[in-house]
Amino acid sequence: MDKAYELLIKSLPDGVDIDFVQDKLAKQNIETPSWGYGDSGTRFQVFKQPGAARNVFEKLEDAAEVHHMTGITPNVALHIPWDKVSDYKEVADYAQKLGLGVGAINPNLFQEPEYKLGSICHPDPTVREKAVGHMLECIEIMNATGSKVLSLWLADGTNYPGQDDFRRRKRRLEEAMHTVYAALGDEQRLLIEYKFFEPAFYHTDIADWGMATLLAMKLGPKADTLVDLGHHALGTNIEHIVAYLIDEGKLGGFHFNSKKYADDDLTTGAINPYELFLIYNELAAGEANLESELDIVYMIDQSHNVKPKVAAMIQSVEQIQIAYAKALLVDRKSLKEAQDQGDIIEAETILRAAYDRDVTPLLIKVREKLGVPANPLKAHLKSGYLAKVVKERS
Amino acid sequence: MDKAYELLIKSLPDGVDIDFVQDKLAKQNIETPSWGYGDSGTRFQVFKQPGAARNVFEKLEDAAEVHHMTGITPNVALHIPWDKVSDYKEVADYAQKLGLGVGAINPNLFQEPEYKLGSICHPDPTVREKAVGHMLECIEIMNATGSKVLSLWLADGTNYPGQDDFRRRKRRLEEAMHTVYAALGDEQRLLIEYKFFEPAFYHTDIADWGMATLLAMKLGPKADTLVDLGHHALGTNIEHIVAYLIDEGKLGGFHFNSKKYADDDLTTGAINPYELFLIYNELAAGEANLESELDIVYMIDQSHNVKPKVAAMIQSVEQIQIAYAKALLVDRKSLKEAQDQGDIIEAETILRAAYDRDVTPLLIKVREKLGVPANPLKAHLKSGYLAKVVKERS
Amino acid sequence: MDKAYELLIKSLPDGVDIDFVQDKLAKQNIETPSWGYGDSGTRFQVFKQPGAARNVFEKLEDAAEVHHMTGITPNVALHIPWDKVSDYKEVADYAQKLGLGVGAINPNLFQEPEYKLGSICHPDPTVREKAVGHMLECIEIMNATGSKVLSLWLADGTNYPGQDDFRRRKRRLEEAMHTVYAALGDEQRLLIEYKFFEPAFYHTDIADWGMATLLAMKLGPKADTLVDLGHHALGTNIEHIVAYLIDEGKLGGFHFNSKKYADDDLTTGAINPYELFLIYNELAAGEANLESELDIVYMIDQSHNVKPKVAAMIQSVEQIQIAYAKALLVDRKSLKEAQDQGDIIEAETILRAAYDRDVTPLLIKVREKLGVPANPLKAHLKSGYLAKVVKERS
Amino acid sequence: MDKAYELLIKSLPDGVDIDFVQDKLAKQNIETPSWGYGDSGTRFQVFKQPGAARNVFEKLEDAAEVHHMTGITPNVALHIPWDKVSDYKEVADYAQKLGLGVGAINPNLFQEPEYKLGSICHPDPTVREKAVGHMLECIEIMNATGSKVLSLWLADGTNYPGQDDFRRRKRRLEEAMHTVYAALGDEQRLLIEYKFFEPAFYHTDIADWGMATLLAMKLGPKADTLVDLGHHALGTNIEHIVAYLIDEGKLGGFHFNSKKYADDDLTTGAINPYELFLIYNELAAGEANLESELDIVYMIDQSHNVKPKVAAMIQSVEQIQIAYAKALLVDRKSLKEAQDQGDIIEAETILRAAYDRDVTPLLIKVREKLGVPANPLKAHLKSGYLAKVVKERS
Repeated sequence: MDKAYELLIKSLPDGVDIDFVQDKLAKQNIETPSWGYGDSGTRFQVFKQPGAARNVFEKLEDAAEVHHMTGITPNVALHIPWDKVSDYKEVADYAQKLGLGVGAINPNLFQEPEYKLGSICHPDPTVREKAVGHMLECIEIMNATGSKVLSLWLADGTNYPGQDDFRRRKRRLEEAMHTVYAALGDEQRLLIEYKFFEPAFYHTDIADWGMATLLAMKLGPKADTLVDLGHHALGTNIEHIVAYLIDEGKLGGFHFNSKKYADDDLTTGAINPYELFLIYNELAAGEANLESELDIVYMIDQSHNVKPKVAAMIQSVEQIQIAYAKALLVDRKSLKEAQDQGDIIEAETILRAAYDRDVTPLLIKVREKLGVPANPLKAHLKSGYLAKVVKERS
Repeated sequence: MDKAYELLIKSLPDGVDIDFVQDKLAKQNIETPSWGYGDSGTRFQVFKQPGAARNVFEKLEDAAEVHHMTGITPNVALHIPWDKVSDYKEVADYAQKLGLGVGAINPNLFQEPEYKLGSICHPDPTVREKAVGHMLECIEIMNATGSKVLSLWLADGTNYPGQDDFRRRKRRLEEAMHTVYAALGDEQRLLIEYKFFEPAFYHTDIADWGMATLLAMKLGPKADTLVDLGHHALGTNIEHIVAYLIDEGKLGGFHFNSKKYADDDLTTGAINPYELFLIYNELAAGEANLESELDIVYMIDQSHNVKPKVAAMIQSVEQIQIAYAKALLVDRKSLKEAQDQGDIIEAETILRAAYDRDVTPLLIKVREKLGVPANPLKAHLKSGYLAKVVKERS
Repeated sequence: MDKAYELLIKSLPDGVDIDFVQDKLAKQNIETPSWGYGDSGTRFQVFKQPGAARNVFEKLEDAAEVHHMTGITPNVALHIPWDKVSDYKEVADYAQKLGLGVGAINPNLFQEPEYKLGSICHPDPTVREKAVGHMLECIEIMNATGSKVLSLWLADGTNYPGQDDFRRRKRRLEEAMHTVYAALGDEQRLLIEYKFFEPAFYHTDIADWGMATLLAMKLGPKADTLVDLGHHALGTNIEHIVAYLIDEGKLGGFHFNSKKYADDDLTTGAINPYELFLIYNELAAGEANLESELDIVYMIDQSHNVKPKVAAMIQSVEQIQIAYAKALLVDRKSLKEAQDQGDIIEAETILRAAYDRDVTPLLIKVREKLGVPANPLKAHLKSGYLAKVVKERS
Repeated sequence: MDKAYELLIKSLPDGVDIDFVQDKLAKQNIETPSWGYGDSGTRFQVFKQPGAARNVFEKLEDAAEVHHMTGITPNVALHIPWDKVSDYKEVADYAQKLGLGVGAINPNLFQEPEYKLGSICHPDPTVREKAVGHMLECIEIMNATGSKVLSLWLADGTNYPGQDDFRRRKRRLEEAMHTVYAALGDEQRLLIEYKFFEPAFYHTDIADWGMATLLAMKLGPKADTLVDLGHHALGTNIEHIVAYLIDEGKLGGFHFNSKKYADDDLTTGAINPYELFLIYNELAAGEANLESELDIVYMIDQSHNVKPKVAAMIQSVEQIQIAYAKALLVDRKSLKEAQDQGDIIEAETILRAAYDRDVTPLLIKVREKLGVPANPLKAHLKSGYLAKVVKERS
């Protein structure tokens, strides 16, 4: 592998500073979701996995395993009420003990029977109040756990034409969000997710990045847009939206996952790894060219129903790491020159040169520095972790 | 309304025989699904409805209410094991007592933990045997209940590239279906459903009408293709597929429902009623022009999570009835002339003349003959049926 | 037909004021596009139609025929340079002589060889200057013809990953548009169109309503968003976007047409007439509920390659008229009540009651008032207009 | 590079025989299309490229340049009448002189004014006769040039509901194709292409692989299905269709290109190179596992409007070569084991291990054997070929 690393270094374009690249990779920070460690279901069946985490503490243990293997996943997003406990201080303490921090808090606005026709967009004000109350409770949990991010995914929408009035729902949404926004602390942020459709829906109240971003703009500087890779119409150029939001200063976060058709929650990079690279290419370009630093929260949002949960998470982290590594190796100076000259083939060739590389030797170096295994997935599979938790958790 | 009916009759094109139309409408036969009457869920939540049927007998009672209101839904499709009982003769007898018959039997090949990686396409032969065994059990239930149709929807597929071998899965599928086919009685049929995708899938083993139809051809004359309106890629011209299958003599059945984006199971006709009309236009044309009768089983396949279940079913039956009525009013002779001359606007105008009609007065006449209320949905809502079952079933 | 009209009137819900409805329909104003009257092509072939207009004056004559038949299409949108003349005063005068006005001016930013890699987003500043210059020329044509609307459709985009930098293109776009905006007169408006994709593209620079609207917001109150029905991903809920833009006060105009799959430019209402109704339902609701009047320019944007051009335009106008008429008949008071109570079936039934009506008798009344034929399409086809222009224009 | 090759060899799984792989790669045979070398247009504009081939002889010269650089493109597909000449023997001779052969003959059934409503599906029998006659003429051209393949892409379809009768069109299609099929020589094949949609269409007469394949089955063993990568609905799992057709023995050919949204004719592999790999994975698996050899014609079908034509073709050939090389490196034995055990992550990891490799060192070895440059695209760009033809062809 040392030889392979040497060959890689020698072949790098002049403009690429390998120390800078390694530094960036060592500082990469991907949040994993607590709900990716517990049993989850499809519309037919919750396929139970032996050893799946049964509560927030076990979820933190699984997240710690991912962090021990990869070195770049120090934070864990929580979902309320799935991770509800009586004392959130305990959660924060246990996370800290495991070398972790509490990431984004995710309110749940879709699972109560009252939310059948929506939560903060519901025609009935008492339902809206309940939903706002739940979000305010989540801010308190942020305060208790040290979380800095409230991450809103709204499953509100209608199922049939005529069911409700689009504009009245929009105004209810804005009103509720103003209340929530006002409760945020100085260091806290609100990230607003959008989604093209939900099964059996006729419309979703925050259907695209435009609706999320206009809402974030109305709320103020603590509100930004969150891009979930699975929440777009097929064919959508997601990297363009990412670049657009960077330029508007409203890109706040990512939910990584992958899809073949719809919102599939497959492991990140599983269907089109080149698209993941092109998205990271915009992020790396943004980091390189902007006056100020990007302030983006990178989160995985996956539910693994067929893959073993911890292994699937490590696999996803690796995919994101690979995409970032390749994006950092793009020869940006030459790329800009080719673009300015309208030399399409040369510009594409420069991008592809970075993408087509095997970055394994580089990642091994970075992992060495991070003190984690050279091959995280393999190391985890061999570690006996799964067998151990199967035993403990049955 | 009599005046309205007179006006309608006067305005009909010469080629339309109103007695024939009324006769066809009186004989229309739409099967309703037992699973549309019980509680069903989304991936998040089973939204329970007060009064929802709790077992197959209550489902039959709900189906009887739909038939009493509409007069054209005499059969009920069953789903095994959701409708599992120890004695199926009891089910058939109770149906008969309610004026109903048992329609298609639908095996369930997706809900057992063993089926996580597929049923009859699963790599493990013991899983495949279990799945085949279940289908053979369903044929026995057909024998016990007098059902003539085995309706197969296969949720088999893979979730990730490489997970399994497409061709080996195809051969397993064919092998299993040959066994099942061989067990069918002389008067029994197999209908094969296809589906473009299932959430979180990478491929489905019967992905489109082509795969279903080639399989049906290999099996023999008792096997035909079933078209579910929600199981196509967006933009697919479903009426073209319907016409194609009629011409190949392999159109065996329909699953009616509606979708905005994906497989949404919305009530039939809710999103694009013109498309439903265009599909019925092919069916009516097929009935009019073919040497032999079409032998198609018309079934509704919907799960109502937000609409009241029985009302939603009646609403769907009405939509299908409207589409058929309009299709029967198409001036086929003039349409053919316009088509032969390449007169696009005239041809389209002829179709639209039928579609744009208000067929309410015609349907009222037909309902009179059938001895059912003039406005089935309204009659049901006023009947107190829901209040009654809420009381009985709590 | 008088009887039919009486029956219609009797059956209207209480809240519908038929005089108001007739008044609204008589004032409906749909702009037709000059380019819909001339020969146009597909990527393979320009299918020439005998009698197709050969210059802007003949296009105005065809537009006048449409207005004579329908009474609601007094304005004609022009496309520069397709309608280029040396003296635009002549065009305005000829239009006036025909009883028409000049509608929106549409710059062409895609047909010059220089625009292969874009116009105002092009990497080369000289190309951008040319494109801006063309738009400024269009504003002068507005001044010369009395047009009040500059309608921008930007075909800019890239074809391959890496070809150009998204953010640099965005900034070039904004810079150019600020220049153009500054040149608008006090009574003039800029409408910004968006488009999901163009064949063979990798990205379009104004890809969706969000990008168009953020740009319009940056430019100022004279800039608004234009919705072209064909420019969305399949499955997009267009009526939701329409309602959203109404609420934001940024809905400036429509381009009507129809599509089955992509940007198909089929005649309006040809594929999903219910969707067209649902869009008009939002517009009628907006008119009814807003404090101030909507200020929207309704335009048809179609290229007829297989249908006869003038007939196709009349057919489209009729479809739009039907959709508006039905939307005006919606019982809004009852609808709101049903929505507030979460009565989905009742709310949908109210909408469908309006949609399922045959509004022909109402439209005949309105056409009587307008002094146009009861059946515009039929009257046109019988008028001998096509035969006349075939002779004149050969 | 020798070191890199050594490292590659050392890291190969046991089951991979590098000599076999090199041999397969050296024998790879990709046909390039004459129409990829001439000027082509979008619906707006034919963007002329200096130096673009102006006739079939210049197209052959360009194809020879591609073959000189890549060594794996010995055949050229022709399109009639775009490549029409009086003496086809001359074309074959000139091809031979250049070291090339004549590949598939492609009839054109969309460019005559008579074909506005279709060719062999047209309602008018005289139009159908003309179209059949053109295909018979193409078979004569096959005889004259030694071509073994008639490659049919049918642009037939309708634009509006009602325009024509689906089933009558289907029967016309079948009748015409029987006539054409009967004229094929013993060594000649018919490949039938399908397409999901064409801009502005309501339906296409051969809409999907199912329709193409049922037609091919009716015609006989000389007819097979041709898969064009751009002709599917978004989200379609193309590799599944490929595997399915291999298993049915009806996969006859490929048209390679790439798309982001619709039928975009972008250079192959430009949008999702992993998908191209997954398709080749099925082909390599088919070659490895089947009793008999696959008999597939691999063709590129691209029109380059923005990229330089010859360079774009070389770039595409390289992408296909890379995909095949990676597919040949898959550890099939381990993959099958993982699949049989349902070990999803291991199976996917095996596939990705092959895909994530940098196969450049391997390709350089193969190119050495073929006697072509190590970097074909770079060599071509530096060769001065474009400058030369620009001069010669102006």
